Parts: sequence; C-alpha cells; structure tokens
Amino acid sequence: MKNPNIVILGAGYGGIMTAVNLQKKLGVNDANITLVNKHSYHYQTTWLHENAAGTLHHDRTRIPIKDVIDTSKINFVQDTVISIDPDAKKVKLEDSELEYDYLVIGLGFEAETFGIEGLKENAFTIQNINSARLIRQHIEYNFAKYNNERDKKQERLNLVVGGAGFTGIEFVGELANRVPELCKEYDIPRENVRIINVEAAPTALPGFDPELVEYAMNSLEARGVEFKIGAMIKEVTPDSLVFEKDEQREEIETNTVVWAAGIRGNPIVENAGFETNRARVKVREDLRVNEYDDVFVVGDCALIINEETDRPFPPTAQIAIQMAEHTAENLKKLVNGDDHLEGFTPHIQGTVASLGNKDAIGVVFDDKKLFGWSATAMKKLIDNRYLMKLGGVSMLLKKGKLNPFG
Amino acid sequence: MKNPNIVILGAGYGGIMTAVNLQKKLGVNDANITLVNKHSYHYQTTWLHENAAGTLHHDRTRIPIKDVIDTSKINFVQDTVISIDPDAKKVKLEDSELEYDYLVIGLGFEAETFGIEGLKENAFTIQNINSARLIRQHIEYNFAKYNNERDKKQERLNLVVGGAGFTGIEFVGELANRVPELCKEYDIPRENVRIINVEAAPTALPGFDPELVEYAMNSLEARGVEFKIGAMIKEVTPDSLVFEKDEQREEIETNTVVWAAGIRGNPIVENAGFETNRARVKVREDLRVNEYDDVFVVGDCALIINEETDRPFPPTAQIAIQMAEHTAENLKKLVNGDDHLEGFTPHIQGTVASLGNKDAIGVVFDDKKLFGWSATAMKKLIDNRYLMKLGGVSMLLKKGKLNPFG
Repeated sequence: MKNPNIVILGAGYGGIMTAVNLQKKLGVNDANITLVNKHSYHYQTTWLHENAAGTLHHDRTRIPIKDVIDTSKINFVQDTVISIDPDAKKVKLEDSELEYDYLVIGLGFEAETFGIEGLKENAFTIQNINSARLIRQHIEYNFAKYNNERDKKQERLNLVVGGAGFTGIEFVGELANRVPELCKEYDIPRENVRIINVEAAPTALPGFDPELVEYAMNSLEARGVEFKIGAMIKEVTPDSLVFEKDEQREEIETNTVVWAAGIRGNPIVENAGFETNRARVKVREDLRVNEYDDVFVVGDCALIINEETDRPFPPTAQIAIQMAEHTAENLKKLVNGDDHLEGFTPHIQGTVASLGNKDAIGVVFDDKKLFGWSATAMKKLIDNRYLMKLGGVSMLLKKGKLNPFG
Repeated sequence: MKNPNIVILGAGYGGIMTAVNLQKKLGVNDANITLVNKHSYHYQTTWLHENAAGTLHHDRTRIPIKDVIDTSKINFVQDTVISIDPDAKKVKLEDSELEYDYLVIGLGFEAETFGIEGLKENAFTIQNINSARLIRQHIEYNFAKYNNERDKKQERLNLVVGGAGFTGIEFVGELANRVPELCKEYDIPRENVRIINVEAAPTALPGFDPELVEYAMNSLEARGVEFKIGAMIKEVTPDSLVFEKDEQREEIETNTVVWAAGIRGNPIVENAGFETNRARVKVREDLRVNEYDDVFVVGDCALIINEETDRPFPPTAQIAIQMAEHTAENLKKLVNGDDHLEGFTPHIQGTVASLGNKDAIGVVFDDKKLFGWSATAMKKLIDNRYLMKLGGVSMLLKKGKLNPFG
C-alpha cells in the first residue's frame, strides 16, 4: 500500500503548526508530507507591525523553516502556489506540480480595500516581511528627504493609519515609539510630525470592552496619536487622504497611508471553486471544505462561525494555531484508517493588544481585564508559548521576548 | 576705542578653525568675534562619503559648535548667509544683518555639473549631513522596494558614481563594504547589485601615482566595483544614465547616480562682486580679496595657485585648516595695529584615500607611497590630528577613529 501524500500550502501559523504537529504524530512510513511556502522562512504575522514601524528588526520575526521542520520527515518545497484543482487532487506551483491525497490549505490573507478609490495603489499594507520593511524604509526615506527640500513638505511627516482595529492600534503604538527616534536621526522637531489614526466604526477597537478602549486611546493620545473616529476614508492619492466625518469632508496631506482596516482570504481558494465569503472558505466542523473530504483549511482562509455572536471568528494567530493542532490530529486518524474526525471549537484564552511604550490592554479568561505592564507581560507570555510550541526551548531562547518588563 | 567686529561665515574646516584659533589668540577685550553657520554643528566633509554609504553614522561626523567654541569669547549665530556687501561692510542673513570690520569667508562648495543634461535634477551630491543621509536612505529604500515588485527593476540595484577622483573612489570603496550588508538585510543576492564608477579622464584618481591608482582599482574591482574610465556622462534621467566611451553611447538603468566629479565655490562670493573663477575667489598671498583689505577667504572658496604646477591647489581639508591658522594669526596682527601680514604657503603633508575594507592608498612626505594598512593608519592619524587641533584630547576621544587597525 502506497503512503498517502499530505501537502500543506503555506508556512504561516496554520501551515507550519500543522507540519510541526504532524512530524510529531506520524512516522516516516505513515505518510509523505510536503510543505510548500513562497519564502524559506516562517514569520510571526502578529509582530510585523513592529517591523513596519522599525521598532523590532524583521530577523527577530522570521524563523528559517529548516530550523523547525525535520527535513528527514517533511519535504520542504520553496515555491509559489498558483492554483488548486481539487477534482484532480493537484496543486500547481510556479515551478512544478504536486499531487495530494490530503491537502491542508494554510494560505494567508490579503488586504480588503472595499473599493476605496486609490487605496490599493497608494496605501501600504502590513502583510509580510517584504511589505513591513518597505513601510519602515518608506517612512524613514520621507524623513530623510524633509530637510533636503527648501519648501518643506508636511505630507512627508503626516503618517496616517487606516483602521483602529487590533493591527491599527498596535501599529500606531509602535509609531509613537519610533517617531521620536526618527526626529532625532533627521533633526526634525517632534511637533512637526503627526500620527493620525482613521477609523470608520463609531469606536476604536470595535468589540473590545469600552473601559479598555478608553485606556488605550488615552495612552496613545498622550503620546501624540490623533484619532479620527467615525471617519470613512473616501480616497487615497500619492500625497493625500480624504475622509468624511459628520458629513464633512476633510483632506490630510500625506505620503504615507498604512491600511490596517480590512483583510480577506486568498484568491487561490476562490479560484479553486470552493464556497467562500471574502475569499474565506466556509468549512465544516472538522475544518474540511464542504465538497471535498480530502481538503482542510486552517488559519485566515477558514471561515468558522462563533455561535454566541452568530458572526465569524476573526482570523487570529491563536485560532490558526488551534486549527493546526486539531487538523494534525484528524489527519493522523485518516492516515490510520479512522474516518471519525473531531469537530473543532476554538478556545479563546485571551486577547492582548500592545500599545507600544511597554503599555498594553487585554482580556484573559473570558472577562478578566488587563492594563499596562500586566497586559504587556501577558502578551509576551502568549508569544513565548507559541515559540515553545513551534520549536521548543531553543527557539524560545533564540526568538523570544524574554524580559517581561523590557 | 571700539573693539573691531570680526565676522566668520561658515563653520566648515576653514571657518571653525579660524574661530578656534582666534579664541586662543585674542582676549575678549581685543575684538568682538561672531561665527555664523546654517546648522548648529560643524561636520567633517571628508567623512561624509561614509555617512552617505551608510558605513558610519553621521553623528560621528558632526560636532556641535558649542562643544568647540567658547561662547563667552565668540558669539555664535545660527543663520543662513544671503549676501555680502563688501562696500557697506555688511552681511545679510536670513533673519538679521551683521556689520563687520574684518570678514572671514569660509563658505563651502557646491557641485559643478558642467551643464550635463539632467544631472542637477536627478543626481545626488555628497555635500552635507542632510544630503549624505538622504543618499544612504535612497539606496536602502530602493533595496527595500526591489522584492515588493513582481517585475524586478534592475535600476534599483545599479549604483552609479560619477567621478573617480578622491571622493568618488572613497565612496565606491564604502559602497563595496555596505552592499553585502544591504543584500542580507533585504534578501537580495549580491550578484544582482552593480557598483559602477564612471570617470571622464583617461585614468582613475587623476594626478595620483600610477602604481597607487592600479593598486586602488585592483582592490576595488576585487570587491565588485566596475570602472568605466574615459567615459563622459551625457545625460541623467530619473532611471538611467547615458555615457559615451570610445565614441560608443551606453545606457545604464539606474535610480541612483551620485555625482562626485566636480565642485565649485559658493555663489555668494560671485554675487558679492569679487573676482572669481568657478565661484572661487582669486585671493592675494595673504588670503585677502584683491579689492578689499578687510575680507579674507579660507577653504574651498579661496583660489590659490600651486606655482610648481601652475594650477590651482585642490580644495582640501588640509589646506583649509592651514589657511584658517594663518588667517587667525594675520587677524591678530591687524587687531593689534600691525598691517604687515604674512603670505600663505600650503604645506602638503600627505594625501591618503581610503578604499573601504580597511584598505587605502596614499602619498606622504612628498614622495613616500603607502598601501593597505599603513595608509589606513595614516588616514586615521590625519583625522585624529585634526580632532586634537579642533577640540583637544576630549574631542579626539569622543569622535576619533582610535583603532589604527580597525
């Protein structure tokens, strides 16, 4: 009997954790496992906003795949996925083609721009290592140019972040840390620089406890972040952003718009013919695609509903990791001839948003609120636990944030 | 009797060393001394190429003026010089006006672009702290953009330096050090990056000993620098450079042209009505302007002829410093009522060009040639001697390059 081919697409949280769990659960004689990823490294998407602001180097955020994958057990292919043919059980890559018996789709998100004029062309997104370090350099380049021009251009120093959700808030927090350093580096007075956060919803951090939201906004405003809440972005050009608030249009001169207000799944799952909503696949309880018993989806591309709120769970690292662990267990069953797969239920252990400057807010154990250093310590604990799961103590020591008060 | 007003324009090598020497030679009751400079800091022009390449931070290169000027003896005005009226004995600044009895012009150079099409608009020059750090960031920004574009643009990775004179050679040497670091930072293979040095003369380092020139070119070529010698730049656009060599036109795709092939004096001295050649003032033996007994010129704007070669001395830091020391001595005489000023003769003690990578070439004591580590050590010795003269041991310890082999 031929060993089944298990193909995992993407080495984000979902893909890499599926691979890491499978290499523990299965022996080399149980299955042929192949992990496909565009880059030679995995990265922690939840740290990218720090790389983009320039407060943490991207080499801290990324981890060579060969450091966590046992290549005697798992075949790693560095290539870009072009398309999936679930009827033929094939995946087309840029340079080759793979056949699978079981497929795990762990492809990442893309930005959802809601058709806002000029947004796609002129805004940056915090999406991967390449785009994060581009944002860092783009901001710095504009600071470097500022004093080289006789007519000073304020648009070089106005930094606008679209969205005051999780990523948007964490990013402006890091910017508030970074800007004083940049001002010193380029001889620019701090008061010349604006950090502006534009959010369409009637509150920052929609869905968060109002007390935590107020704490977060106060902390960020004290460090010079301006909020435009209930403000709809209407248009982005190379040197401006227009928003509407209280039926008034306002224009901000800016060369730097970072869009952190909406994400969608991956077009590859749409093109594969699966049933999707914003490119996220409506999966069964066991995370398999409705029409195909041999295709699992983990992470951002999997759409599952929170029955308490009747809304989709947000695409978070926490859920992606749990999906991966769950899927590895189900794959082990299938490989061993057991078709009774377990249904997946996320266990939300906590949600913590950093605010820069060693400050943070969060909720843990359903209803316990955290502020300040305790939230910061909790955030690091969560990140460090992930590194332990991914690569054990050695990975924690290499990439962990080990000073709980630092 | 009223104390004479001595006004010094510019805090480059010439201006700041005039001020430092005057504060030693004159007492507060001898003269009112005012130093005018655009920035609050002096900088070592001879280190700017390292700042521009990104191999040395610009804070190593600049020195707060108040760290070397005794403000109880010298009045420092941070302002930009607009014009000089030598008949009215007045200097117009952006924010005020100064009257002088004696004027020392130490204004810096500007780039000479020889009317080459598009050069002024599209090329960078290594001119001051602002322009140096802009070059550093411009190069890095293009590296950061490279992997974010589906169609890779080679012009982002082709770095072209116009001129293989002293500055051009030193700059490509630093670039050869910096490029491997940038490649690592942005995941770009080193072989994708080109460093191209274009020189119109029939040799690199015109005027240098041919054996030293050959050593320098071999050293740089071994580290990936390409030379186009005898190549006239014809045109620069935002994404290309065209040169002509052996009657063939060749185009290089590039976003980065750094022009290091020609400098001229300051337009302010032309507009003052002095007799000039390329904005350098033809001064008398005692460095005074022909028509005015009360105006001295030191540094890049002073044109003096080398009688051995019947050509102007090049505008170097070494000569500027000697001019400043000499002028301070002559000013002391004038203040003390002695009109018999001394004529100035430069004493060229040596010329050393660094090649990056701890390599260098040079000539000292007229004819002794230096290569490699001995030239590097000599270069540092020269720089360190200057820092001693400028601000004593404490300045040497703060800003010196103290590891002779590092």
